[in-house]
Amino acid sequence: MFDKEYDVIVVGAGHAGAEAAAAAANLGSKTLLVTMNLQTIGQMSCNPAMGGIAKGQIVREIDALGGYSGIISDKSAIQFKMLNKSKGPAMWSPRTQNDRMRFAEEWRLALERTPKVDFYQEMVSGLIIEGEKVCGVKTSLGIEIRSKSVVLTNGTFLNGLIHIGERQLGGGRAGEKAATGITEQLVDLGFESGRMKTGTPPRVDGRSLDYSKMIVQPGDEIPEKFSYTNTKALSHQRDCHMTHTSTLVHDLLREGFDRSPMFNGRIKSLGPRYCPSIEDKINRFADKDKHQLFVEPEGWDTVEVYVNGFSTSLPEDVQFKALRSVVGFENVKFFRPGYAIEYDYFPPTQLKHTLETKLINNLYFAGQINGTTGYEEAASQGLMAGINAHLKVKEESPLILNRDEAYIGVLIDDLITKGTEEPYRMFTSRAEYRTLLRQDNADIRLTPMGHKIGLASDSRLKRMEEKLKKSDAFVNFFRETSVVPEDINPILESVNSAPVKQSHKMFKSFSRPNVTMDHMRNLKSVADFIEKENIDGEVMEQTEIQVKYSGYIAKEKNNADKLQRLENIKIPENFDYRLLKSLSYEAREKLEAIRPVTISQASRISGVSPSDISVLLVFMGR
Amino acid sequence: MFDKEYDVIVVGAGHAGAEAAAAAANLGSKTLLVTMNLQTIGQMSCNPAMGGIAKGQIVREIDALGGYSGIISDKSAIQFKMLNKSKGPAMWSPRTQNDRMRFAEEWRLALERTPKVDFYQEMVSGLIIEGEKVCGVKTSLGIEIRSKSVVLTNGTFLNGLIHIGERQLGGGRAGEKAATGITEQLVDLGFESGRMKTGTPPRVDGRSLDYSKMIVQPGDEIPEKFSYTNTKALSHQRDCHMTHTSTLVHDLLREGFDRSPMFNGRIKSLGPRYCPSIEDKINRFADKDKHQLFVEPEGWDTVEVYVNGFSTSLPEDVQFKALRSVVGFENVKFFRPGYAIEYDYFPPTQLKHTLETKLINNLYFAGQINGTTGYEEAASQGLMAGINAHLKVKEESPLILNRDEAYIGVLIDDLITKGTEEPYRMFTSRAEYRTLLRQDNADIRLTPMGHKIGLASDSRLKRMEEKLKKSDAFVNFFRETSVVPEDINPILESVNSAPVKQSHKMFKSFSRPNVTMDHMRNLKSVADFIEKENIDGEVMEQTEIQVKYSGYIAKEKNNADKLQRLENIKIPENFDYRLLKSLSYEAREKLEAIRPVTISQASRISGVSPSDISVLLVFMGR
Repeated sequence: MFDKEYDVIVVGAGHAGAEAAAAAANLGSKTLLVTMNLQTIGQMSCNPAMGGIAKGQIVREIDALGGYSGIISDKSAIQFKMLNKSKGPAMWSPRTQNDRMRFAEEWRLALERTPKVDFYQEMVSGLIIEGEKVCGVKTSLGIEIRSKSVVLTNGTFLNGLIHIGERQLGGGRAGEKAATGITEQLVDLGFESGRMKTGTPPRVDGRSLDYSKMIVQPGDEIPEKFSYTNTKALSHQRDCHMTHTSTLVHDLLREGFDRSPMFNGRIKSLGPRYCPSIEDKINRFADKDKHQLFVEPEGWDTVEVYVNGFSTSLPEDVQFKALRSVVGFENVKFFRPGYAIEYDYFPPTQLKHTLETKLINNLYFAGQINGTTGYEEAASQGLMAGINAHLKVKEESPLILNRDEAYIGVLIDDLITKGTEEPYRMFTSRAEYRTLLRQDNADIRLTPMGHKIGLASDSRLKRMEEKLKKSDAFVNFFRETSVVPEDINPILESVNSAPVKQSHKMFKSFSRPNVTMDHMRNLKSVADFIEKENIDGEVMEQTEIQVKYSGYIAKEKNNADKLQRLENIKIPENFDYRLLKSLSYEAREKLEAIRPVTISQASRISGVSPSDISVLLVFMGR
Repeated sequence: MFDKEYDVIVVGAGHAGAEAAAAAANLGSKTLLVTMNLQTIGQMSCNPAMGGIAKGQIVREIDALGGYSGIISDKSAIQFKMLNKSKGPAMWSPRTQNDRMRFAEEWRLALERTPKVDFYQEMVSGLIIEGEKVCGVKTSLGIEIRSKSVVLTNGTFLNGLIHIGERQLGGGRAGEKAATGITEQLVDLGFESGRMKTGTPPRVDGRSLDYSKMIVQPGDEIPEKFSYTNTKALSHQRDCHMTHTSTLVHDLLREGFDRSPMFNGRIKSLGPRYCPSIEDKINRFADKDKHQLFVEPEGWDTVEVYVNGFSTSLPEDVQFKALRSVVGFENVKFFRPGYAIEYDYFPPTQLKHTLETKLINNLYFAGQINGTTGYEEAASQGLMAGINAHLKVKEESPLILNRDEAYIGVLIDDLITKGTEEPYRMFTSRAEYRTLLRQDNADIRLTPMGHKIGLASDSRLKRMEEKLKKSDAFVNFFRETSVVPEDINPILESVNSAPVKQSHKMFKSFSRPNVTMDHMRNLKSVADFIEKENIDGEVMEQTEIQVKYSGYIAKEKNNADKLQRLENIKIPENFDYRLLKSLSYEAREKLEAIRPVTISQASRISGVSPSDISVLLVFMGR
């Protein structure tokens, strides 16, 4: 039936699968996307939002490399916010609320418009393995489809088990079937598997809420967007709202704890620490008398509402009673209760930096199957797995992002080096070079790489180069142009900065705290430059960051360069750690298991101490 | 959790469920719509089209009564055709191709905008029965939701079993779970249940087809629309295409017959006779060397295509190989194979004319659960069940449409009087008064009734009355206005009709064959009337039909009036047929089972002969 062999088969069409299929196909691989239901491509299973702290940076990185998540998010956005704008630019994080239906529809159309993506609706129940290589998939109807590589992005579907109170039912998402067969086969092949848990809050009827009692959460006054391409920023937005729980609500929830699968031992696996259920929050933070709830619309037109912060697997009558005691929710009507779901994952230390499995060649894992949580984490892994599956099929060098190049690099290096026993979520604190990994410069960092492998278009590269050229010129302008005290002192005084007595380069006063581009552009020579060079907002932002944070940036670059030396010291592929008697027993065991590629990676493995690294350095230095 | 009692709970949100919920709520009932998946409200499970022969009339009837199917179809249409335009107006049948995603989205939004509709996502697994009355539903999570009445619209989900070749899997639709529990409980309560079958063709990738080898099937040059409200007619349309099978294709399909669940006995239930699978067609019509296939786009933007005419449950490799031999399909790629599905239904003779069950009070069935096939058949039953559930709750008289008033009346009367052992589909031939039951006058026939019960809005009634007033005036104009030979003879000659020698009323020449409104409006006095009275296309069409078919219409009205006398002779509710010794044994048995309400209904029961009717008439005449 599938008479020809595909280059890449992607199993699953969520954030990871959709990015994987698009990337492989756009690079030139004949790609097949197989999913249990073609009508649920690009489903947002949980909250209707993209981005946020560290995650927004990832979306921009995906976009810079030539992925689609940023474009899809922009096209389906109903609200935009740049989070942490009051902090330094390393912390600025774009986030959108999205129309859930539009988001899925835009993904489906984007994939349909990708010429080399074929589609097939069916449950994949196993892999075709020949020797140590994957050669395709088998479906539940018994069809075999052959391919040179396979990317698994099964999300929460592998043996998915939904919990609501005392009830459990099989399913990959509410109302959808679980997927079976793959875990069992992979375990037979020698893979280690585990169980994780995640949860989702109730969906409610917006018509039953009293928004007048809540705090309005509008979008940014001047909304930006994710993609570096010419997607449009929003001209109007939908508001979110905020309310909070109370001791009464907590008491009502506690009444259901004996029937909670979280507390009576039925759920054994770990959920996302930083996205806990409401019962978890009131249990862990017993002293807090309230928790914030964000009331998020599910789209432009629908009345359905997502209750962010109220994820729960308590019995639905307990959910209901408690939520009715929340301010503004006195008359709430449920569309469906919240629930928890347990699913299979595979500890990601079984993967290489390319997301290929160590055990089976040409088999890639991306998304929740690797123990991560979050749309952005999933999408970025999908993108990298799709890229690397393609590159391997075409016998080209893999694309591996370093920790100082991208959050995506941090994410994958963390996963495969440290593994994870609870759902892994990205934070800015996980990145040691976060001043380098900003949302504003993802294009400068990554578009050249995306372009080199053929994924980011010429126009993307050109746009980035233009921006870089202009911002470099603008920075130079500030470095080289002097300003006289009469001109600069009013600005300095307006921000309570000491006046100057002599002319000096603008860069110097611009570097002072609280002096911004908005101040500097009041100077005639700056305004002239802006007009003459046709400087837009993006270039201004880039320039401002380069001027004001030049010290921090230089320092981090320096640190990264130093560590790069460790990164350059490769460890031979089949290196026998038993040769190094002076390694600690723990270090040897971990090194054998993870098999790091470089000394630098070895240094990040938990249980490998600085003295172990010295031993390795001495040996490798020979 | 659901602390208050609903007036009406509707189970299922397909065409039947959506209309039922909207109708009950718009009439003022507190309504809950419960479905396994809120994201599949208003799904077109099979072909992306509404209307067609007899079915288009039903859509217009639904619209005239105040239902939504016509409006939703108009809003999501991508092509419009008035079928049978070359035949008499009784045969004219509107049909749209629809954007599958838009259709579902419009339904969801329409329901969300209906204030008294609440939503809940969960599988209903049983009913709450107290005495002989339904009092709510039970869900699979064990929730009980109380109500004064329940409408079941389970479609193909009750114990749904999907067949593809030798494989079977449980499911209500491809990729969706089956529903369990309800059939078992109803059978325990004394209901008779049966199994039916239906099927669907493969969905394919439009990018893989060669349309240049097919025949283009465009929409009408001047597209009309379904709804009598102010929905917009299409300004541009998408083409369909036509191709056909061949003896080669048939031979390839026959190779799979031994693995076909249709022919090896695995499928025991009957499928829709007039919508047969391709294997059924080549089996039953072995002498035909080709069958038409209609290639229908699934929406404005998607590349997915529906292969109308190729419904099949043959193994997917056989489907694929055969379809590849169809002209234009040489390189076809499948999105998913066709399949057959078996599901539970309840012989509809167990229902009253209101669609309430005879066994359990306030329990209504609508759609495929009653053994029908087709979106329009389902939607119209949903509408009537929703209306009557509401009316009963409010202790008002039921709304029952007679056979001379609506196709919907024919449909329901056929179902409950004759029952059905194979999926029932509407045809114009099923209506004995089809000249009365036209698509152009559904508003005149039904909007007054819809308005009287409070479902059709004042503006609908006003629009209809305006149209009626104008067309009556226009007909009168033709009756009363004379035309001189010099004016009319050129028209008569142009259609090869004998010229006249004397002035006479326009009505007379307009009545002649082939003389149309387009001819008549060339006459100055007609043109003046049109301008002065502001006559639009709809009124012109109505007038033309009233003039040209006045004879037929009058004759059918007369027949209907005669039969109405039989309709007026009621049979007492608990009439003991054993009193009538002269009834045939078969008649007595059938009459006991069906318990007709009138002599007229009794006359339509198969096995009840004219002489049995005479016996009844003599007795009831006393």
